[in-house]
Amino acid sequence: MSQIERVAIVGGNHGNELTGVHLVKKFQQYPNLINRASFETLALLGNLKAIEEGKRYIEKDLNRCFTNQGLQNPQLSSYEDMRAKAIQQILQPQNQPFVDVIVDLHSTTANMGLTLIFCDMHPFLLRLGAYLSSINPLVKVFINQESKEHGFLRSLCELGFVIEVGAVAQNVLNGELFQETEQLIYAVLDYFERCNQGNIPQTTNHLTLYKYIGTVDYPRSDAYGKRFLSAASRREGLPLRGEIQAMIHPQLQFRDYQPLHPGDPMFLTFEGKDILYEGASTVYPIFINEAAYYEKGIAMYLSQKQEEIV
Amino acid sequence: MSQIERVAIVGGNHGNELTGVHLVKKFQQYPNLINRASFETLALLGNLKAIEEGKRYIEKDLNRCFTNQGLQNPQLSSYEDMRAKAIQQILQPQNQPFVDVIVDLHSTTANMGLTLIFCDMHPFLLRLGAYLSSINPLVKVFINQESKEHGFLRSLCELGFVIEVGAVAQNVLNGELFQETEQLIYAVLDYFERCNQGNIPQTTNHLTLYKYIGTVDYPRSDAYGKRFLSAASRREGLPLRGEIQAMIHPQLQFRDYQPLHPGDPMFLTFEGKDILYEGASTVYPIFINEAAYYEKGIAMYLSQKQEEIV
Repeated sequence: MSQIERVAIVGGNHGNELTGVHLVKKFQQYPNLINRASFETLALLGNLKAIEEGKRYIEKDLNRCFTNQGLQNPQLSSYEDMRAKAIQQILQPQNQPFVDVIVDLHSTTANMGLTLIFCDMHPFLLRLGAYLSSINPLVKVFINQESKEHGFLRSLCELGFVIEVGAVAQNVLNGELFQETEQLIYAVLDYFERCNQGNIPQTTNHLTLYKYIGTVDYPRSDAYGKRFLSAASRREGLPLRGEIQAMIHPQLQFRDYQPLHPGDPMFLTFEGKDILYEGASTVYPIFINEAAYYEKGIAMYLSQKQEEIV
Repeated sequence: MSQIERVAIVGGNHGNELTGVHLVKKFQQYPNLINRASFETLALLGNLKAIEEGKRYIEKDLNRCFTNQGLQNPQLSSYEDMRAKAIQQILQPQNQPFVDVIVDLHSTTANMGLTLIFCDMHPFLLRLGAYLSSINPLVKVFINQESKEHGFLRSLCELGFVIEVGAVAQNVLNGELFQETEQLIYAVLDYFERCNQGNIPQTTNHLTLYKYIGTVDYPRSDAYGKRFLSAASRREGLPLRGEIQAMIHPQLQFRDYQPLHPGDPMFLTFEGKDILYEGASTVYPIFINEAAYYEKGIAMYLSQKQEEIV
């Protein structure tokens, strides 16, 4: 691993996720908090217009706009497509890597504590995850290898990852999560600093991680019977979805990273009927009841738990 | 008290408060759930377009559009002004009361349990509040007498009141709160039925209520130094506000209806400094950290606790 020379911290990739927005504003005001002796750190706001409007996005999800195809297509002219190109110009001028690490700050209405989301099993990231989760039990590591072609901002960089904190409502600041996220960022930066100095913190070589299996949608009515097609679906050309017929089951709500066994209740219909998990094996749901995922047809992600020596 | 002949239940007055939206859809599908032998009940969706878009409102807050002045002004043509007039035509055709009670269903990111909000100390409503809070300790009663001129939907009717449930994020359904709200509505309707039969449930004549004192804004920077003016502020002509400089203090977060004593921490600045409550007497904050109130300049309501014989 060569030296880390430049790190980018991005907040407000989604405009209604205030933790990252206000952390980045703080870092822009006090850059010494995030610079270290051996590298410099850039603090950047993502979706400026959406932040101003208190929305996730204006026309389409910015954090799906960073595909090679999209970035190279001069026809795409939505606000988010333009903003994605502008962010790429900052982080990859002339298509050359300018930053070695991207830390993309998100928040969720699901009870995910402090989750690190990696796109792959990069050994450097896994060791970082092992270190951070050893010093803070709130830290979890989720690996989503399916996410490479989705156009996430973090894909601009080999060492790009997300910090996803929750549970917190959209357009709300939670003081405790704000401070925990801030401390986690400092721990990340201090780790990089020690790596650069050849003095990698050795705490544990053991890492519990959660690997993406798939997503589960809410039970829905026939799409053709749907009275409302959300504006976002129309804009993004998302598939027509029926109306939801059930809610996350109260026994599953806020239980991210807890085992879900075959036969456990998963949904509760509006009529009060339980819908059980019918899979063959125990899974670990996350992103349970994330507000922004209703329109994406996702009630939760399922993951498998795995122990790793890193 | 004369007979109750017609009750209206409104959901989705704010389009991103899903509990009320889906309860009303359920009641529209199964009207027998809300009709009673001695009266009929109307289930009505409020801000149709905002529900479709998953927003609180499209152009302005519908639940501020029910002033006499606004309803009688043919110049007002925003979606919400038009929708307010349409709802008035349903609930007050020819300006005559058509319904005897309006139950307006809301949800909040504050931890308000099941709160009944009344505009005044109407003895019938106070007795209803005493009954409901005696059978369910989650039920709280908040009296906001300042609210009469604010153009709330509930002001269309002498016996109009709000059921405000939380904590739940915007655009999220919480199964437990959904079921608790549903049961509360049935208890309200059953109470009316027994009143009509001259058989008013006698459980207690004692009521704990919380009375509006005022609101507290977040500490903010000078408005003139503000870089962003929210779109909503521009649209609604809300006063220019500076950027917030502090968050709800972690020790106050989710502690709605708990006493706040002089000297208790109230806010936490982004730099980590506590800001204390400097009032002279103990108060009871509610609507703590409601997402929709950031743009209204409200970090919380303050109330005083009062015991009443009804």
